[in-house]
Amino acid sequence: MTLQQMFDPAAVAVVGASATEGKIGYEAMANAVEFDGPVYPVNPSGEGRLFGEAFVDSVTDIEDDVDLALCCVPGAATPEVIEECGAAGIGAAVIYAGGFAEAGEEGERLQEAVVAAADRHDVSLLGPNTSGFVVPERDLLCSFASGAEKLPAGNTAVIAQSGGVAHALAFQSRRQGRGVSAMVGLGNRANVGFTETIDYFDGDDRTDAIVLHVEGTDDGRGLLEACRASETPVVAYKVGQSDVGAFAESHTGALTGDHELYTAGFAQYGVPTVDATDDLLDAAAALADSPAPAGPNVGVVTAQAGPGIIISDRIQRGGGRLPELSSETQQRVDEILTGVTYTGNPVDTGRPMPAFGDVVTAVAEDDGVDIVLVYELYEQAMGFPVEALSGLAERVGKPILFSTDGIEEDMADDLSALADAGVPVFETPERAADAAAVLARYAGMAGPAAGQEVVADD
Amino acid sequence: MTLQQMFDPAAVAVVGASATEGKIGYEAMANAVEFDGPVYPVNPSGEGRLFGEAFVDSVTDIEDDVDLALCCVPGAATPEVIEECGAAGIGAAVIYAGGFAEAGEEGERLQEAVVAAADRHDVSLLGPNTSGFVVPERDLLCSFASGAEKLPAGNTAVIAQSGGVAHALAFQSRRQGRGVSAMVGLGNRANVGFTETIDYFDGDDRTDAIVLHVEGTDDGRGLLEACRASETPVVAYKVGQSDVGAFAESHTGALTGDHELYTAGFAQYGVPTVDATDDLLDAAAALADSPAPAGPNVGVVTAQAGPGIIISDRIQRGGGRLPELSSETQQRVDEILTGVTYTGNPVDTGRPMPAFGDVVTAVAEDDGVDIVLVYELYEQAMGFPVEALSGLAERVGKPILFSTDGIEEDMADDLSALADAGVPVFETPERAADAAAVLARYAGMAGPAAGQEVVADD
Repeated sequence: MTLQQMFDPAAVAVVGASATEGKIGYEAMANAVEFDGPVYPVNPSGEGRLFGEAFVDSVTDIEDDVDLALCCVPGAATPEVIEECGAAGIGAAVIYAGGFAEAGEEGERLQEAVVAAADRHDVSLLGPNTSGFVVPERDLLCSFASGAEKLPAGNTAVIAQSGGVAHALAFQSRRQGRGVSAMVGLGNRANVGFTETIDYFDGDDRTDAIVLHVEGTDDGRGLLEACRASETPVVAYKVGQSDVGAFAESHTGALTGDHELYTAGFAQYGVPTVDATDDLLDAAAALADSPAPAGPNVGVVTAQAGPGIIISDRIQRGGGRLPELSSETQQRVDEILTGVTYTGNPVDTGRPMPAFGDVVTAVAEDDGVDIVLVYELYEQAMGFPVEALSGLAERVGKPILFSTDGIEEDMADDLSALADAGVPVFETPERAADAAAVLARYAGMAGPAAGQEVVADD
Repeated sequence: MTLQQMFDPAAVAVVGASATEGKIGYEAMANAVEFDGPVYPVNPSGEGRLFGEAFVDSVTDIEDDVDLALCCVPGAATPEVIEECGAAGIGAAVIYAGGFAEAGEEGERLQEAVVAAADRHDVSLLGPNTSGFVVPERDLLCSFASGAEKLPAGNTAVIAQSGGVAHALAFQSRRQGRGVSAMVGLGNRANVGFTETIDYFDGDDRTDAIVLHVEGTDDGRGLLEACRASETPVVAYKVGQSDVGAFAESHTGALTGDHELYTAGFAQYGVPTVDATDDLLDAAAALADSPAPAGPNVGVVTAQAGPGIIISDRIQRGGGRLPELSSETQQRVDEILTGVTYTGNPVDTGRPMPAFGDVVTAVAEDDGVDIVLVYELYEQAMGFPVEALSGLAERVGKPILFSTDGIEEDMADDLSALADAGVPVFETPERAADAAAVLARYAGMAGPAAGQEVVADD
């Protein structure tokens, strides 16, 4: 089974497409027609056209090679639909309906019937009980949520156990001026789970980082092995530290499990963990848009002391180190900043200044520094040191993170110049520091200790 | 000493005003002239007018009643300027220059000289070593930072030990669609510190919440007493948990002190603490815009299960409780949501729906619920339950917090309708949950235990 047909299909069928606004079969079709390939509304009671596409009675009537079916039918009708899809040679299906494994014994039996049909024909299933997925680059909007068509393309693949969280992450990513290579809500994971999805996006050219939202899984081993096998960096957000078991189980049919066991397992298999949706996307941006960090040593350059203290504190709490700068670097910085406030690590220039970029460059070139974090309140007359930062990360082979606060519209041009230069930018001192700490932890993860088992299948 | 002359002056003098762009005396004047009262540029070498205002040679030459002087002169000239200000009857001054107590023994002596001059004439000093303050409502921009003129008026007073952090908080507040009643960077706190500033803003009609950024103070007792005496809710962000002592001391001349001692002290004196700038502003918004919570019991209503799990987990970790709903409420919710997913607490409606507002109302009316948190991914066809939420908090006498993720421009109208209805809105599920947890902790703080000393003067 490959997920090529799911995430990179030649043509798409919307089964249960409906002309009734508000129905999932309508919303799903409204989004699906944005696709850059053929889309077929399938419904034996459908008449004429829907969003310009002619209704067909059944997937077996389509002559085109359809790879992916979006199933907008009630749960009870799903096994038959999957059977038909399989017979028609469709290799992937999204099942939006709920009422399966998350909803008690009857639902479990229904889910088994769906999986049996899928297995007979080798159909990959996303869901049931998911709001679907989106691949912005191909305008492949297999979600019934509104706004999916406005999600920008980026280089982070979002893989979330919950469709709701998948969407929340994708919307947040857009607000942060980033984007996603794909946004996937796994739902009940009937036969496609974290393992298969991580494998697929590790091989996806558009994906430079993979983020996971994990509630719980009965295949912890498979999840961790897939993470370890991934050449693309993976960051995980494991939710559920307090007692939310009953509600969580009602959601995607899985207990949240032991939080510390997951965290330790992830760490051992090379996956830094974070504790919030925004941190997850920040970590992905830091990993996706930077050279791999060689170690946990962070050089901090700040134009204001107060945010510098916040940043230094959090980096150390998050597993990073703030090494002393080499004497050559200190000398260089002292030359640039004669008489200026604090030239240790962090270097505090007191306020933005024309030589700010030179200071950043000096710190970035220090052999004892693995990661650089720059903070500067925006000052209009000074702008950002775009020229100095442009290409610097590649030249020194180190991640260079940037963070600022200011008036958004005043900063817009400078921020987009930084974006064009490929510099990852973070919204608050804390979020920048947390992203740097993720890089530091990531650098310290040498892969799993041989023979040790942290998370057993349960 | 009252800070009326500082934060609500009749007229302002800019001492050391300069026509040279880039100088602090220029930037400060550029901002000061926005003030809704008279502003005088003071400089014996100044000629003609600056930003339309005629230069005067000395503060003693001004016939108007000037209350506030912005000192844009080098550190060494400051004692004399303060002496002159005092002689001219000016009761408040902002000192931007550095090189005082934060910069070793010589600086300490200089600061002592400034304080002695101020004390002779009862002049309140903000700084030295600060970027100043802003009162947006009066266009009183006593900061040399660019963008200060775009800070919107709001009902949270930001009091930060660091001028940089004060500005970062104010800019963040604007980005979040909020605003500040005042933004104050205390700097070295030569004779105005947390105590006096908290006192003043507690009595300020425009201020409904006070947020503190604290690095360290040698008057912990005074700080806590001022917090306890404040009828306006106070939230604190104490930075510096790891070893940042040397850098912090170089900043505003204070060690960061023992973090846990501060946290415990704040809790005992009725001040919830948070651990990030964005959390600080979220907590302020929750406290400022809501009826006071009567207890720690949070009722959660969510349209998507995944974010609901995140929220439930964090509320409990943050000190809130998720009580069972009363049987009446459960029955009411079951009637509204026949067959829908999870009607415990959280109530999960599965997706947005027309009856969503009715569910929120039912939970808000539950006697066992003290605080309500609502999360809903934005769905264009459905919008937000603005009508149901409008006035609900006041009617039930409980905080009602709202959080969403979606496409910003699609949500804009609905979000501004919520803002008009006075509903505090939060950007991510985690930030909403953390704000609810602050409310829960705040409700549990009954003031200090009699006779106990948590933070001694040190």
